[in-house]
Amino acid sequence: MPQRFDLLVVGGGVIGLSVAWRAARGGLRAAVMDPAPASGASHAAAGMLAPVSEVTYTEEPLLRLGLASLARWPSFAAELAADAGREVRDLDYGDGGTLDVAFGADDMAALEELAAFATGLGLPARRLTGRECRRLEPMLAPSVRGGMLAERDAWVDPRRVTAALLAALERRGVTLLRTRAAALETSAGRVTGVRPAGGAAVGADRVVLATGAWSGGPAGSGGADGPAAIEGLPPGALPPVRPVKGQIMRLRSPEPILGRCVRGTVHGSHVYLVPRADGELVVGATQEELGFDTRVTAGGLWELLRDARELVPGVTELELSDTVAGLRPGTPDNLPVIGPAGPPGLWLATGHHRNGVLLAPLTADLCAGDGDPDLLKICSPLRFQEPC
Amino acid sequence: MPQRFDLLVVGGGVIGLSVAWRAARGGLRAAVMDPAPASGASHAAAGMLAPVSEVTYTEEPLLRLGLASLARWPSFAAELAADAGREVRDLDYGDGGTLDVAFGADDMAALEELAAFATGLGLPARRLTGRECRRLEPMLAPSVRGGMLAERDAWVDPRRVTAALLAALERRGVTLLRTRAAALETSAGRVTGVRPAGGAAVGADRVVLATGAWSGGPAGSGGADGPAAIEGLPPGALPPVRPVKGQIMRLRSPEPILGRCVRGTVHGSHVYLVPRADGELVVGATQEELGFDTRVTAGGLWELLRDARELVPGVTELELSDTVAGLRPGTPDNLPVIGPAGPPGLWLATGHHRNGVLLAPLTADLCAGDGDPDLLKICSPLRFQEPC
Repeated sequence: MPQRFDLLVVGGGVIGLSVAWRAARGGLRAAVMDPAPASGASHAAAGMLAPVSEVTYTEEPLLRLGLASLARWPSFAAELAADAGREVRDLDYGDGGTLDVAFGADDMAALEELAAFATGLGLPARRLTGRECRRLEPMLAPSVRGGMLAERDAWVDPRRVTAALLAALERRGVTLLRTRAAALETSAGRVTGVRPAGGAAVGADRVVLATGAWSGGPAGSGGADGPAAIEGLPPGALPPVRPVKGQIMRLRSPEPILGRCVRGTVHGSHVYLVPRADGELVVGATQEELGFDTRVTAGGLWELLRDARELVPGVTELELSDTVAGLRPGTPDNLPVIGPAGPPGLWLATGHHRNGVLLAPLTADLCAGDGDPDLLKICSPLRFQEPC
Repeated sequence: MPQRFDLLVVGGGVIGLSVAWRAARGGLRAAVMDPAPASGASHAAAGMLAPVSEVTYTEEPLLRLGLASLARWPSFAAELAADAGREVRDLDYGDGGTLDVAFGADDMAALEELAAFATGLGLPARRLTGRECRRLEPMLAPSVRGGMLAERDAWVDPRRVTAALLAALERRGVTLLRTRAAALETSAGRVTGVRPAGGAAVGADRVVLATGAWSGGPAGSGGADGPAAIEGLPPGALPPVRPVKGQIMRLRSPEPILGRCVRGTVHGSHVYLVPRADGELVVGATQEELGFDTRVTAGGLWELLRDARELVPGVTELELSDTVAGLRPGTPDNLPVIGPAGPPGLWLATGHHRNGVLLAPLTADLCAGDGDPDLLKICSPLRFQEPC
């Protein structure tokens, strides 16, 4: 007798797992299909929950999404921890803000404008002198001339979050199908389930595609080196998602050397440092458009080390504990793709680019039909589809 | 009935394994005691066999040792490969020379003097223009102004060498005791064997201490963080060996980007790149005096990446495949410590600092009583002992 679920999520990253968990909490029989859950972009992510410090002039819709999801994080973390049988502190959730620092005159001017823009929007952002920055973070380089503190920005350890999600799913009786999805099953124009590679179809009333960088249609598939997109969809139903490579480095310290996330622009490239309670320091992240390339390269590491040293010279004393590269699912407008797409029975929850961890609570709520319809509209897959 | 051997080597690095193998080839019943053979400095070593390019004014004795051992390498490699049931190419032995390059006027002047010194000694060294350097190695930075080619310098993959030594030892019936040596056993003032931690003594007519950075007496033990030296020796019998940390990085390339070893001085620090036949490129090496610290640090990696980029900008495209730190056994005069020491029945074969792989064939011969007595005299442990 074939398996059948209310909801089948394809893709077990932080987005897919959150969607399935929220559905299960809502009483649905849910399943997740992924040959290697929590091993992609979520595994590489640093876990900044920083909508304010990442705000830019052209991206107010993204800011709205980020603020809405950041507001959900405390309850998301509390419920997740409870469901997983853990404490909130096991997720390494911290809310000490993000300190954005500047070195040169150009950086200072840009920071000034950003702070004016943020405070104009009523966002909790505060301009600091170099001295004030170093009072907050004594390990900062003496050459830091000023900064902006986004006081409500937070962070979390994505690896602990996905581990907790997997534990919560198990306790909620959600089925984890460790296999690759090959094709959507359709019947009378409606999606009815998913056929795994070399297996029998799994039936579902609704299928959510949450396959991150591997969600793209031909326009965004990264070219000939890209893996085959899922089969069974009409042309144009897959969104223009492309892989955006990011390399990060984890350093080990006997105790935390920073009290909050620190970011800055060095030689024109952005770098950020995310502290963990156990002293680990995550340094990220490069942005490279290289198709489905997940090699950690000498050049990527060199950039991270060069820039991190510039911000916090003391990092040179820390031990290297991990290097990893992940593929963010980028979209043309940097906004995620969430909502019904193509044939009935199919939803998308992908394209979160740099913001998958931040936007997981909001995405899960939107997929559960619980959230501001305006926000869902911002994320609609239809914005990329050709008019009929 | 207790075990008894003609020769018991304490320490299973490239030196200890070579000594035991040579002894077994000479017909002795040999054994090696090491809880984790081939895991220390030999595992971290890059494998340059470069006595000429490393020549300096004050170190002519070391140069003599290096040249004598380099001359032994081809037959050592051939015999080792045969004994291990492998081909010589499995050791990744290459003899394309070392190219030492210079960037600034100071480097050029130093290189000029070095070349004059080397050719004055009749060594095979040739001055090259920047253009000639790039003709030899097209991946070199355009800013390279000149170089010196040490034409007979060679290289080898130390990991493949120790793996072959272990295979050869097994085929020769040499016993590998995977346990830690706790104390020397003595009887009537003579060393009679070794007592392992928590085990029964193993008897031997001769014991060779080849414990690398862990060979030091109190004067060289690296201080309070150092492991306990082997017990059972009279004060002063252990040589003043200290740990000198080196960090290296291995990069992966689809095919070799260099045809020979390349070294240079960048911002006052030395860096070298050793090619492997399979495209791997080993980048080394820092020199740090930090006691028994084997952490790979952000600062160490940063130096390696910065300097390697300067020599060969294309390394940035390569994938990072490994990082490792090892402890070289340094001595006050940079010369190894080989020969009888302290009570009868005990030999030392340690203190090889940066030259363990290069000097392994010579060291094995000297320990087997086969080699120039003048060279053995250069290495004598007695040079560090107080006159009675």
